[in-house]
Amino acid sequence: MQGTILHGPGDVRFEELPDPKILKPTDAIIQIKATCVCGSDLWSYRGVDTVTQPTPMGHEYCGIVQEVGSEVKSIRPGQFVIGSFFASDNTCIICKQGYQSSCINREPVVGAQASYLRVPLADGTLVPTPGYPSQELIPSLLTLSDVMGTGWFAADAANVKPNSTVVVVGDGAVGLCAVIAAKQMGADRIVIMSQNPNRQKVALELGATDVITERGAVGVSHAKELLNGIGADSVLECVGTLEAMMQAVQIARPGGYVGFVGVPHGIELNGLELFFSQIHLHGGPAPVRRYLPMLIDLVWNGKINPGKVFDMQLPLYQVAEAYKAMSERRAIKVLLTP
Amino acid sequence: MQGTILHGPGDVRFEELPDPKILKPTDAIIQIKATCVCGSDLWSYRGVDTVTQPTPMGHEYCGIVQEVGSEVKSIRPGQFVIGSFFASDNTCIICKQGYQSSCINREPVVGAQASYLRVPLADGTLVPTPGYPSQELIPSLLTLSDVMGTGWFAADAANVKPNSTVVVVGDGAVGLCAVIAAKQMGADRIVIMSQNPNRQKVALELGATDVITERGAVGVSHAKELLNGIGADSVLECVGTLEAMMQAVQIARPGGYVGFVGVPHGIELNGLELFFSQIHLHGGPAPVRRYLPMLIDLVWNGKINPGKVFDMQLPLYQVAEAYKAMSERRAIKVLLTP
Repeated sequence: MQGTILHGPGDVRFEELPDPKILKPTDAIIQIKATCVCGSDLWSYRGVDTVTQPTPMGHEYCGIVQEVGSEVKSIRPGQFVIGSFFASDNTCIICKQGYQSSCINREPVVGAQASYLRVPLADGTLVPTPGYPSQELIPSLLTLSDVMGTGWFAADAANVKPNSTVVVVGDGAVGLCAVIAAKQMGADRIVIMSQNPNRQKVALELGATDVITERGAVGVSHAKELLNGIGADSVLECVGTLEAMMQAVQIARPGGYVGFVGVPHGIELNGLELFFSQIHLHGGPAPVRRYLPMLIDLVWNGKINPGKVFDMQLPLYQVAEAYKAMSERRAIKVLLTP
Repeated sequence: MQGTILHGPGDVRFEELPDPKILKPTDAIIQIKATCVCGSDLWSYRGVDTVTQPTPMGHEYCGIVQEVGSEVKSIRPGQFVIGSFFASDNTCIICKQGYQSSCINREPVVGAQASYLRVPLADGTLVPTPGYPSQELIPSLLTLSDVMGTGWFAADAANVKPNSTVVVVGDGAVGLCAVIAAKQMGADRIVIMSQNPNRQKVALELGATDVITERGAVGVSHAKELLNGIGADSVLECVGTLEAMMQAVQIARPGGYVGFVGVPHGIELNGLELFFSQIHLHGGPAPVRRYLPMLIDLVWNGKINPGKVFDMQLPLYQVAEAYKAMSERRAIKVLLTP
């Protein structure tokens, strides 16, 4: 088969690779119907995270089950399935509490930007759709594998409630999905912090009520002004930089909530500032598996359309151009089809 | 009157001071019936926090209302009252959400280690007891002014629930009060981390089920072993050092909660570690006012006896010895009576 390998900063290649095989009796092999490039893939593409060896890329996927291992019970060949970027058994004590991304037996899913993919712990990881989806639904279903589940977790971790005030820090695909989640949860006010007119437009279409273009101290005071002078009930941090995190902490009102889902890069939080902010802080790698059945239902019934975050579509073999477009911020997120 | 002034590290004096006066029409003057030294007073006593001028000490108090300003409506002379270390209006948008320690009009209460005390925002800050308390109740009622309210907040912030597993980091008065709170909230397992046999004994009397004497990595792995191998549902950080905070973060299970109430000194939290821990973090200066009516009720009806944290009692004029005894860890907490 063919798949995507990162050889070094900026050097991503679509090349011939061995077909994936069942390695453990709990594995499944799926034929990829759609995949994409994640904002987190860009950390290594840009050389911020170091790549020491050729690395198979991609962890967002949906497709058709081809083959299952001898111990797989509920997943069957022919099903259309979606899974998270972390494989989980969905039965351990941590999974049962809804934190499948910290499953005792978790394994990262790697190499999804390819024609075929091995998914470990298939029964725990994969969730079948009610039937074979129409072509229009596939982009939205694909987002459930990561960005929509992550945006939902940001909103859930930040305790978004009906009639609450929400600020979303970050206008990438996760930030835009966080807007969708906040709207679904009934937030009254959804402020997106964005400097990019195209992304502002998408955010407003998805349910944002206000845009703040400033960052740093000016952005913080603008947000507080908008929100009763005291700040937001919930702030959804969807970037992962120190600047974004400090904005989030400072914009939340005392007793408010920050949900943080951007993978932290260079973030150190001062204990005393956190103490006197009196915020609630929760985040981490999203337990996407927890939300998959509910989100599949919302997409299947046309309640949400997170596929809108894809503003570019390319054939999978042009994956290098997809990375380039996203790294140069010419695209929010690129859909790739084998 | 006479009161307590800190002149520099280790130099605390009980001396003649002007009587406090009503400065604003919302003030009250109370005659102190009992006060005490707080663990947080020791930061400046020990020179960790810098004192640049002679500073009136003490923020824990209960006593009898002597006089009220012209705008005070609900508090009346003669009432026995308790208040928090932060005065609050209890009506602003932040107070209404239960975060009175971040009240828009908050003022610190200072100079409680004295015969008389001015309390700002009397109507919002002070809560009268149902009647004049018996002598035995006074120590417990005094703790509601800070340490018991703070211990309760630690448990509340850490989401302690019936049948949950709890670890308390710190064996000072707040840690011991946190044990009381966790027990009241129905925790199944309450582990206290303490190296001091006297304090371990008090903790066990108050409801702790297990003691861990190790700190650092060894303490963390011991705690995890005890608790299903994965860690605690709730960790209550009642110290404020980096070591204590990191213990707390590492002991909480994925999806678990850390309530932190120790005033942070030298704490910087690594974003990536926090991210992958998947914990909930909440803390700050406790909104003691939120809990006062409920805690007065529990003490009044003999459900809790937090006065047990006082293992030394001195007349107020011996306040210098009280600081010394606590700083040298000869006493958990010293009750002072004028």
